Amino acid sequence: MIVTVKKNADPKLLKDLIASFEKRGLQVNDSQGSNYHILGLIGDTTLLDEKMIKANPIVDEVTRIAAPYKKANRLFHPEDTIIDINGIKIGGNEKIAVIGGPCSVEGLDQICSLAEKVKEAGAVMLRGGAYKPRTSPYAFQGLETEGILDMVEARKRTGLSIVSELMDSDQIEEFDKYVDMIQIGARNMQNFTLLKAVGKKTKKPVLLKRGLANTIEEWIMSAEYIMASGNPNVVLCERGIRTFEKYTRNTLDLSVVPIIKEKTHLPIIIDPSHATGNWKYIETMSLAAVAAGADGLIIEVHENPECAWSDGAQCLKPDKFKHLIDKARNIAHVIGRDI
Amino acid sequence: MIVTVKKNADPKLLKDLIASFEKRGLQVNDSQGSNYHILGLIGDTTLLDEKMIKANPIVDEVTRIAAPYKKANRLFHPEDTIIDINGIKIGGNEKIAVIGGPCSVEGLDQICSLAEKVKEAGAVMLRGGAYKPRTSPYAFQGLETEGILDMVEARKRTGLSIVSELMDSDQIEEFDKYVDMIQIGARNMQNFTLLKAVGKKTKKPVLLKRGLANTIEEWIMSAEYIMASGNPNVVLCERGIRTFEKYTRNTLDLSVVPIIKEKTHLPIIIDPSHATGNWKYIETMSLAAVAAGADGLIIEVHENPECAWSDGAQCLKPDKFKHLIDKARNIAHVIGRDI
Amino acid sequence: MIVTVKKNADPKLLKDLIASFEKRGLQVNDSQGSNYHILGLIGDTTLLDEKMIKANPIVDEVTRIAAPYKKANRLFHPEDTIIDINGIKIGGNEKIAVIGGPCSVEGLDQICSLAEKVKEAGAVMLRGGAYKPRTSPYAFQGLETEGILDMVEARKRTGLSIVSELMDSDQIEEFDKYVDMIQIGARNMQNFTLLKAVGKKTKKPVLLKRGLANTIEEWIMSAEYIMASGNPNVVLCERGIRTFEKYTRNTLDLSVVPIIKEKTHLPIIIDPSHATGNWKYIETMSLAAVAAGADGLIIEVHENPECAWSDGAQCLKPDKFKHLIDKARNIAHVIGRDI
Amino acid sequence: MIVTVKKNADPKLLKDLIASFEKRGLQVNDSQGSNYHILGLIGDTTLLDEKMIKANPIVDEVTRIAAPYKKANRLFHPEDTIIDINGIKIGGNEKIAVIGGPCSVEGLDQICSLAEKVKEAGAVMLRGGAYKPRTSPYAFQGLETEGILDMVEARKRTGLSIVSELMDSDQIEEFDKYVDMIQIGARNMQNFTLLKAVGKKTKKPVLLKRGLANTIEEWIMSAEYIMASGNPNVVLCERGIRTFEKYTRNTLDLSVVPIIKEKTHLPIIIDPSHATGNWKYIETMSLAAVAAGADGLIIEVHENPECAWSDGAQCLKPDKFKHLIDKARNIAHVIGRDI
Repeated sequence: MIVTVKKNADPKLLKDLIASFEKRGLQVNDSQGSNYHILGLIGDTTLLDEKMIKANPIVDEVTRIAAPYKKANRLFHPEDTIIDINGIKIGGNEKIAVIGGPCSVEGLDQICSLAEKVKEAGAVMLRGGAYKPRTSPYAFQGLETEGILDMVEARKRTGLSIVSELMDSDQIEEFDKYVDMIQIGARNMQNFTLLKAVGKKTKKPVLLKRGLANTIEEWIMSAEYIMASGNPNVVLCERGIRTFEKYTRNTLDLSVVPIIKEKTHLPIIIDPSHATGNWKYIETMSLAAVAAGADGLIIEVHENPECAWSDGAQCLKPDKFKHLIDKARNIAHVIGRDI
Repeated sequence: MIVTVKKNADPKLLKDLIASFEKRGLQVNDSQGSNYHILGLIGDTTLLDEKMIKANPIVDEVTRIAAPYKKANRLFHPEDTIIDINGIKIGGNEKIAVIGGPCSVEGLDQICSLAEKVKEAGAVMLRGGAYKPRTSPYAFQGLETEGILDMVEARKRTGLSIVSELMDSDQIEEFDKYVDMIQIGARNMQNFTLLKAVGKKTKKPVLLKRGLANTIEEWIMSAEYIMASGNPNVVLCERGIRTFEKYTRNTLDLSVVPIIKEKTHLPIIIDPSHATGNWKYIETMSLAAVAAGADGLIIEVHENPECAWSDGAQCLKPDKFKHLIDKARNIAHVIGRDI
Repeated sequence: MIVTVKKNADPKLLKDLIASFEKRGLQVNDSQGSNYHILGLIGDTTLLDEKMIKANPIVDEVTRIAAPYKKANRLFHPEDTIIDINGIKIGGNEKIAVIGGPCSVEGLDQICSLAEKVKEAGAVMLRGGAYKPRTSPYAFQGLETEGILDMVEARKRTGLSIVSELMDSDQIEEFDKYVDMIQIGARNMQNFTLLKAVGKKTKKPVLLKRGLANTIEEWIMSAEYIMASGNPNVVLCERGIRTFEKYTRNTLDLSVVPIIKEKTHLPIIIDPSHATGNWKYIETMSLAAVAAGADGLIIEVHENPECAWSDGAQCLKPDKFKHLIDKARNIAHVIGRDI
Repeated sequence: MIVTVKKNADPKLLKDLIASFEKRGLQVNDSQGSNYHILGLIGDTTLLDEKMIKANPIVDEVTRIAAPYKKANRLFHPEDTIIDINGIKIGGNEKIAVIGGPCSVEGLDQICSLAEKVKEAGAVMLRGGAYKPRTSPYAFQGLETEGILDMVEARKRTGLSIVSELMDSDQIEEFDKYVDMIQIGARNMQNFTLLKAVGKKTKKPVLLKRGLANTIEEWIMSAEYIMASGNPNVVLCERGIRTFEKYTRNTLDLSVVPIIKEKTHLPIIIDPSHATGNWKYIETMSLAAVAAGADGLIIEVHENPECAWSDGAQCLKPDKFKHLIDKARNIAHVIGRDI
């Protein structure tokens, strides 16, 4: 960390500042020139709070050099983390995991019928929302526990593991009991109470979606919250970020794939459905994601998108979903992987 | 709501679509031209889900004309809502309410001493964080219940009502018992579970901060969640939005003041501390906020900003805070209000 | 176009408004309900100015349904436009065109040596900046005419066609004479004077980069400027947009590939160098771009990136560039194309 | 400037790097720790190119500490620059200058009649667009030279100095002859060719608008371009930035007022018309701008906004404009200024 000290700073205050760093076990290099005065802090600066240092009246600027995360950091954990979900492996050079299913669970028949179809198409897991984060209080809020139990039945019939979104720490017990991977949605990416709770109260893998306007570093810090609280099983999921573009719902940022692999050891999967918001662009963006090296895809599938209870515009029909997987498999082979 | 139908749409599907709208009590005007075909829906479209309609294969585009909120809508509630907090009134043409206090409660002595000073300076309420949403799991997370009880003591000594941030629905009972206004932070603006909980389980006024990258409409929809769940006492708070600018922490959007007053009947207050992230700009932006017609200001004050346990860089010392209020009072008089 | 009229609008003003539309040859459908009053305009609304209509005191909202572009619109020109540059074809199902070269031309030897190497690697065109748009007036501004002539010599020696950025209409004559494809940079995407000039004064293909914070529609409108001014030979180039992300220079938006192909008939190429700003991510994003269906790639190549006069961090060395092309070719084959 | 060197960097390359800095007259402080290795560069780093340094394979990160601008920098020019336009003074503690007029000049009668009215209302300068940057090639592009001459006549009749937008370096001679302040529009803020031209070919004051998605630092760098090219007479103008908000055309960033005054010595004026895009919010935002310390306001005024040839929705009628100025004057008095 670099601390720029103001010109003509009071020597007493400067001495105190340096002492405060040294007390934390940091080594301080003091460089002074005609125009600037810089302190270089050497050691573990993860626990330092830039804003607190910046509040010191003799400090002009604070620049962090080392990443503020540790548990998620590739530097301290060079090998890939591979998440195992009932034998399905995500990450490393494992098969690319395709997860399919509806935005919302709409009932037992719907989810079971769809589960059969996504399995036939080549998916290895089933997604389905039972608790739904909706912008409007008047929109459908999900079947809740009933939806979770419908998914459990679909798993029983097809053998597909299931993933669903958790919205409140009160539901962790339910999710820990029934669900195979727990999704934290984009709008809850910085719901720190929830992150700590899934870190402490469960060891089930957590699928952590990137917030709509969050940087990759903030996203990794949210993974760090879960990991620091005790649950190392985190899978990151890019689902598009908010930009000025209006032709898509959000903008899919595929550069996260090489970056997450460089900075962390965690698996990264891509959600082209929420990113584009338009079924017409999903196949194309899925192929691009696989070419970029994604460890998985999570895609919305519905038998009658026009009747879906939520997000119909971004659902693929099962036959198109199968077509996508077949094409993506060929791309995967080119880069030395499989689906 | 306007639904643009595709050219050469199957007449059977079109008939079904129109019937589905009429079944919901809407009147449908069908306009057809050489290039376009439009359905105008007349009636209460609040409950319609655009995305669901858009998923229909014969639909090209869906455009909402009416606002998607009702309870917060000025159209259906023309008079200003005035929130009363132990006699302090916020909104309408009432005195502009100034709320001051530290980012984090750091102990009984700190908060009580500061409470005296912000009161002397002219503040009518005391702010202080006991549960802190921090980007890093390694940063100070707040004194929690101890912090709340310290604020209660500060209220007892000074008579100032208190506001603090709620991060989890499990704490509502505590907040309902001890706190006078419950803050929902920017990162929880779309934590819909929490919004429903403060709507259902308390009638205490809620200070709803705008999310870092949310539109005004999404923000009003979050107020609508609280109101639709049973709690009409919402005060909106702008605290800056994320932009590309690096010289400020966020960008303060003062145009929310006239817009919130036009679209809703709720009070709007401004937080220049989080918006700018720099104590040097706080007074200027406070004067601007008052000139724009804000119903209140919420400002971070600390006796030793350089030692603050969080956000020191954006704290004012008590004397500067007093100076700000005095100057803002003169601006208020020009626009026919008082502080 | 949909015009929402205010409730209780003066019937005289309404009649005038409707007449003003009919005078322009539009058919007007008037739909009136209990809450809303809507005019649907049928016909060619390209020439209407929404903002002018919105200024009418009886108008509440104006919503454009039809795209505001014509010449670039796929609707009126269903077949793909294929741009021919000295026999190199870009667009349709032609070979994916790879363009390589340095950010800045640094001298005759550099550009000629590099031209040989990018040709060997598989590139079909040479890029090189002679006029450089730099944020700082103190940064290297390019070799100007000397740089252009150096590229001409490199073309002579290798047979590679050349592309370079035009910054001022005064240079069009020079570019028309010497350069094979004229680049308009991101910062000039809405320099309408320049767009009109390259439309009027040359028929050379124009490589139009997307602005840093522009929507796809605005970008297409800039292509429309060139085309409406007389030059139909436009190739679009995505080079990343500005977002809040800090780990990349910009965010590459690959969803533009399917969208540009749906909305327009123009070729679309991808610049992963400026988008990521980091040579480590270029290969990955290039593979993704090819999988998404891009018609070309434009990549910065330099023999000694650490000594490049500009943008060294985002340059590939020639051997890495060759490796990228070979890998991308395999991806291309999967989707039925070649490089 | 801080250069972070990679661990285990080749000592030969490191020595070369340090030598390259020293050759430019910089002093290099080398700080090495267990995890990081940092070079602190002391001296004039304005001319260094971060990206070029970052391309060096032994360099990990480059952090600029000193501002990259000199001529505009308050540090090297502590007193306020006051721009004199035919006796009207802008900046320092001078009267707040109000500039009014139509978006587009529509003819001699219109501009002369309006000039009388904005003068009566209290404006000291007349604005009017003769060359118009429009997103669509089919929208009205301005009266060009005829429009400029109409404004010259309006000046003759009223004595008001005139400001109009320049879009091409070919028109500088015309503007230098006829116009009193030359506006560079938001979309041309990084048209570096044009910036250099108005720096070299004229000494007329330049009103430099902030780009729609540009940082304050980039904006100051554009001012630096003009100043470094020979014209020190720059007035900065904030006109709103692009954000996700839809209820306003752009988001007015009033924090630029204290920041521009801190970082530079140049005057700063505010354009609430383009920022909000809605006449209803203009007065409020103007009062806020004055309270924040703006040195001027530039506001669109039109006698019949509903018939304006461009941007009617954001025009004030002359009586509302007068009302605004009167109210703003009272705010100005509170902060010790006048209008």
